[in-house]
Amino acid sequence: MEAGFIGLGQMGTGIAKSLLRTGHRLRLYNRTVSRTKALLSEGAVVAGSIAEACQEEVVMTMLADDAALEEVTFGRGGIAASLKRGAVHVSLSTISVALSQRLAMEHARLGQEYVAAPVFGRPDAAEAARLAVVAAGKPEAVQRCKPLLEAMGQKLLVAGERPAIANVIKLIGNFLLGSMIESLSEAFALGRKSGVDEELLYEFLTTALFPAPVYRNYGEAILRGRFEPARFTASLGLKDIRLVLAAAEAERVPMPVASVVRDRLLTATARGNAESDWSVLGRIAAEDAGLAANR
Amino acid sequence: MEAGFIGLGQMGTGIAKSLLRTGHRLRLYNRTVSRTKALLSEGAVVAGSIAEACQEEVVMTMLADDAALEEVTFGRGGIAASLKRGAVHVSLSTISVALSQRLAMEHARLGQEYVAAPVFGRPDAAEAARLAVVAAGKPEAVQRCKPLLEAMGQKLLVAGERPAIANVIKLIGNFLLGSMIESLSEAFALGRKSGVDEELLYEFLTTALFPAPVYRNYGEAILRGRFEPARFTASLGLKDIRLVLAAAEAERVPMPVASVVRDRLLTATARGNAESDWSVLGRIAAEDAGLAANR
Amino acid sequence: MEAGFIGLGQMGTGIAKSLLRTGHRLRLYNRTVSRTKALLSEGAVVAGSIAEACQEEVVMTMLADDAALEEVTFGRGGIAASLKRGAVHVSLSTISVALSQRLAMEHARLGQEYVAAPVFGRPDAAEAARLAVVAAGKPEAVQRCKPLLEAMGQKLLVAGERPAIANVIKLIGNFLLGSMIESLSEAFALGRKSGVDEELLYEFLTTALFPAPVYRNYGEAILRGRFEPARFTASLGLKDIRLVLAAAEAERVPMPVASVVRDRLLTATARGNAESDWSVLGRIAAEDAGLAANR
Amino acid sequence: MEAGFIGLGQMGTGIAKSLLRTGHRLRLYNRTVSRTKALLSEGAVVAGSIAEACQEEVVMTMLADDAALEEVTFGRGGIAASLKRGAVHVSLSTISVALSQRLAMEHARLGQEYVAAPVFGRPDAAEAARLAVVAAGKPEAVQRCKPLLEAMGQKLLVAGERPAIANVIKLIGNFLLGSMIESLSEAFALGRKSGVDEELLYEFLTTALFPAPVYRNYGEAILRGRFEPARFTASLGLKDIRLVLAAAEAERVPMPVASVVRDRLLTATARGNAESDWSVLGRIAAEDAGLAANR
Repeated sequence: MEAGFIGLGQMGTGIAKSLLRTGHRLRLYNRTVSRTKALLSEGAVVAGSIAEACQEEVVMTMLADDAALEEVTFGRGGIAASLKRGAVHVSLSTISVALSQRLAMEHARLGQEYVAAPVFGRPDAAEAARLAVVAAGKPEAVQRCKPLLEAMGQKLLVAGERPAIANVIKLIGNFLLGSMIESLSEAFALGRKSGVDEELLYEFLTTALFPAPVYRNYGEAILRGRFEPARFTASLGLKDIRLVLAAAEAERVPMPVASVVRDRLLTATARGNAESDWSVLGRIAAEDAGLAANR
Repeated sequence: MEAGFIGLGQMGTGIAKSLLRTGHRLRLYNRTVSRTKALLSEGAVVAGSIAEACQEEVVMTMLADDAALEEVTFGRGGIAASLKRGAVHVSLSTISVALSQRLAMEHARLGQEYVAAPVFGRPDAAEAARLAVVAAGKPEAVQRCKPLLEAMGQKLLVAGERPAIANVIKLIGNFLLGSMIESLSEAFALGRKSGVDEELLYEFLTTALFPAPVYRNYGEAILRGRFEPARFTASLGLKDIRLVLAAAEAERVPMPVASVVRDRLLTATARGNAESDWSVLGRIAAEDAGLAANR
Repeated sequence: MEAGFIGLGQMGTGIAKSLLRTGHRLRLYNRTVSRTKALLSEGAVVAGSIAEACQEEVVMTMLADDAALEEVTFGRGGIAASLKRGAVHVSLSTISVALSQRLAMEHARLGQEYVAAPVFGRPDAAEAARLAVVAAGKPEAVQRCKPLLEAMGQKLLVAGERPAIANVIKLIGNFLLGSMIESLSEAFALGRKSGVDEELLYEFLTTALFPAPVYRNYGEAILRGRFEPARFTASLGLKDIRLVLAAAEAERVPMPVASVVRDRLLTATARGNAESDWSVLGRIAAEDAGLAANR
Repeated sequence: MEAGFIGLGQMGTGIAKSLLRTGHRLRLYNRTVSRTKALLSEGAVVAGSIAEACQEEVVMTMLADDAALEEVTFGRGGIAASLKRGAVHVSLSTISVALSQRLAMEHARLGQEYVAAPVFGRPDAAEAARLAVVAAGKPEAVQRCKPLLEAMGQKLLVAGERPAIANVIKLIGNFLLGSMIESLSEAFALGRKSGVDEELLYEFLTTALFPAPVYRNYGEAILRGRFEPARFTASLGLKDIRLVLAAAEAERVPMPVASVVRDRLLTATARGNAESDWSVLGRIAAEDAGLAANR
């Protein structure tokens, strides 16, 4: 189908590619125009403005954070001002629950539809159409974007009518990943100082107890001390844990493990690891145990 | 092969049954004699004393905690005094790293062999011979007990020559399980207060992100609020996290997530949940978020 | 001297009274007009709008939170639009470091002066002119408001030229108070469950080890379980700890004790203690130790 | 009065000197004899064995930890075997609640008296007779040692009949000190990274908010980065926080701030600061915030 697509960072570019490949026709907008060029050969059309990207029945956004999405949506000549009545804004970004609630309210006020559809997976999974997508919004609106959402990955979860619910689920997922990374980091620090053969520990944990790809992938990064290049930076991880804690605070839910992950990510970024992968918590746990920074 | 077997709690009974079923001949000793009776029909022989259980080349112990194993080993008429030179004491219990180190030293001093072989799995898995076993000790000694260790489960990890290494790995595994339970508990508390459909959250987390049986099993307990009957009590969980923290302190490794799990387990036991399954942390996280104690 | 004064909550009313008593002439503005009436007999003049309160060389604000101060300053007909060039906005509120930085920038852009002067003390101390005031801003601007600042309390600290510095110090102070309350709460929970005579513990701690009024006052509240009426609510405490953590995150400073205090305040508010005094952490620590909610 | 005195470390030597100065006659025993020599000129008598030190109606012990006191008391030729029926063992050491309970039980069984009398203060305060002493035990037994206890300091608290109560109070006091140090460390890390004038922050906090000598002393160490020479080492601090957490676990009291202090002390010792003063937490908080190790 035809859709506008705004935001061509690493994730956005991957998603756009996979959508184009499955035959969807995208009108791309990115603040830095050069990033759209690479996709022209794949059949995309470049939009000269946000308004041009909003001509179709659906416009998708994949932006870095709350501030970027707010600017694109509510700024002068933004989506709110440009989207037709009845058309759908599908937000793929990981944003705060509060902003998602505000988007729902404002789009409704303007007679526009809004679907929150944050995604799980890294840029390579995006390009390979292997993301997991969690969508929420009015059933009719979700239904209309389904061809796009289904083209993005193997797994689509429709989570209900309130868009912000999808954002909560996304944040919960990232919290569980972050807490897994921190726990593995502490585990390996203890193993290493106790003289355990780490390869063997890694194999045992990821086959006998936790046979899940995320344990294997993050566990291997911690085992090998390979935190660069980042697939998801400590800096982005810190942002997401901040959003988790803000959502939890709004609902009055203490999350002490999330607080620990936050504190460790702060130390990681304070010590110059902001652009490392967030599995760099393995390095921090090691340093705090008096082990040399790296292997 | 022939072996002594001391300690017929839930786990010990399950293991003894599975060993008897595969043709091993066991000489059973338990402080409370009645527990040995049930196994006579399965071909076991009852030992009237610890010394009698120590007549063979191998004696296995499966006891509740450090104190029980110390008493059985170093008490009057205990294993240390009864085991032949060259025979092997195989300790299956989850005990402190410090006690395992002491056992290694004392048995060596007496010309006896010592293998630490803690196990992962619950009583039903023990009986079904589906445990994961982590063994460490002198290669020759481990080799001699291999028929027994392999009969206990599908997975045998030989972790090195220093017995205590196996105990460290066992403790690391339980720490990771405890931290997973606490993280899931916080996640569900946030989900529930945010209005997320919990069934759906559960399905998504345990298939798309963390497709591992432990996530499914513990996640379901938290989802349904089913913490009784316990398969592994909060009280035992607290004991193990204490051992983790003691091992970490001895090696000077801070483990802030372990500290969080400990604090929550303390609250769980302080509030009358000591004999509930340790997934009762789900109840505590809910209570601390102001949710009614149970669903 | 003459000054505008905006914000007549409990603190604002107390401060206004003490200023009027020492001969300053105030032009009062409050959204709810009725609150200004009570002060007319003390010599105050009522301002019908924010603009009217901004006629003098100095306008002081004492508002509940960031949102209220932003509205009063940057809203239509607000201080930014009304204050004369060269006149001073003195902000007494406990606000975020980020908003204080924004106020400094915006007022400078408009040729207005801005002094941050948050205060320590409760409403009764405000009325009795016994506050501690921490002021920061351009020396000349601070100099001009000194008669007002000195009339508010016995202690005035001039903390430098960057206004936000004063806000950081205020937040640090409240963090230290919150961490003291939480620590005392844990201490009394342990003492009580161990069978220590609490009166005696209280006396010993607050005379032999920590002979400071804040230990005596908060310690007594925890000892007696007297958390109502609140002098500073759990809800406000939570707000301030959130500001501490936000300031610390901006500077990349992990503050694990602040995270603990935040989690406990969340539990306090989730369990219905939002309007109790923030020393109600004593109740939470007791409940988490399995003690009955109250004495 | 006449008394035996066992244990001439820094604290023991200081106390012995102050007791001798006020006219008490001590029979000193120390494993390393040379340490007793220095006190001969002050009128002390050297005991050649523990038994010799146990000839009087009272024997005092001041030892490093549980293990040392257990050896001196229950080892061959120790206090339990040597002390007369009805005579009093006064234990001044900071030991576990569990050991204190065992001492009470064993001495009672042997017809001996036991008084726990842990002290607050550092070696210089000990020598200057400015300790605070918390004593507990049977009133008649406490009464008999009062001349000694009162000679040790300005403050004597009699805390009840169960000796272990005195140990709980001692541990609570050290927990509150440790939590104060950690909180100050976090506060100064935030202040420093925010550009606050630290001298000024120090002055303000320790006069306007927390006018207690412990805040001034520890605050100054953190402010100046002066952690050596130690007056109370990180290593000893870690031991005491371990005892606090053990006492709290026995009573099922979660103490999350104590857990934070423990984790930080572990990092401190893991990074080579074991023999620095425990205010070295100021260095750790700074390092974890990415600040250079020292000023």
